[in-house]
Amino acid sequence: MIPDATPSGDISKDRLRLWLKLLKAQSAIEAEIRRRLREDSATTLPRFDVMSALFRHSKGLKMSQISGLLKVSNGNVTGIVDRLVEDGQVIRVAVPGDRRAQLARLTPAGITAFERLAQAHEGWLNTMLGGIDEADIAALAAQLDNITDHLEADHAN
Amino acid sequence: MIPDATPSGDISKDRLRLWLKLLKAQSAIEAEIRRRLREDSATTLPRFDVMSALFRHSKGLKMSQISGLLKVSNGNVTGIVDRLVEDGQVIRVAVPGDRRAQLARLTPAGITAFERLAQAHEGWLNTMLGGIDEADIAALAAQLDNITDHLEADHAN
Repeated sequence: MIPDATPSGDISKDRLRLWLKLLKAQSAIEAEIRRRLREDSATTLPRFDVMSALFRHSKGLKMSQISGLLKVSNGNVTGIVDRLVEDGQVIRVAVPGDRRAQLARLTPAGITAFERLAQAHEGWLNTMLGGIDEADIAALAAQLDNITDHLEADHAN
Repeated sequence: MIPDATPSGDISKDRLRLWLKLLKAQSAIEAEIRRRLREDSATTLPRFDVMSALFRHSKGLKMSQISGLLKVSNGNVTGIVDRLVEDGQVIRVAVPGDRRAQLARLTPAGITAFERLAQAHEGWLNTMLGGIDEADIAALAAQLDNITDHLEADHAN
């Protein structure tokens, strides 16, 4: 474990400002995604995230698995899945060998709807991140990996 | 308004991945800040954020101003301010000319407590972002500004 240190002067303030800029960019992008999902696609980010998790796990997920993946409460996930079931985009299926558990799974209509949303989402991000060229994307991605890896390595110690 | 476009192939996927990496880094840093505030300082991020807003506005803020600045609900802000008042870190003062409105303002003890927390927070960020050297901080900060400015310019059109 590296001891915390506040180096004197500028580098420390620069790192603090970098965090505030990271937060600001993330928050601006997320706000725009929420707005686009609402206005262009009549849906919400939590609903998009639940569909995305189910899309990546095509065999289905328990409510507790969805909330674990998304870090949202079980109650909220249940409400979102209820509405997706009403809309015919998700079905609940029994878990073999566990009569009380149920998996949520995308229906074919849900898969089609999610693919359309995911394509729109990718298009919005292309517009939002259009000011960054390919070389800078690679450099920025490497720095962000660096931050995440550094944090994960510190936690592993 | 720039029309949305999904350029074929890699650049589009690279921009999508860049967003996911940005989200992952932001989320990892924020989780670590929440953990440190809880374990090292026996406080929470919403409480830290309320104190930070009051620190930056030393004349005091209405509940609605705090919730506007922080994008959290009025009800949550009121609960946090209630606890800060109980702890002697915030006082409520009348607004001249508006007998129903009140401002929350940090007490001297609240200012001292926040300054200590802010110093710790800066130290944690120094540790977390310690893997990035000064030249890379400047490059990364410029790219993040670029993203935020691009979004703001698009909204202004």
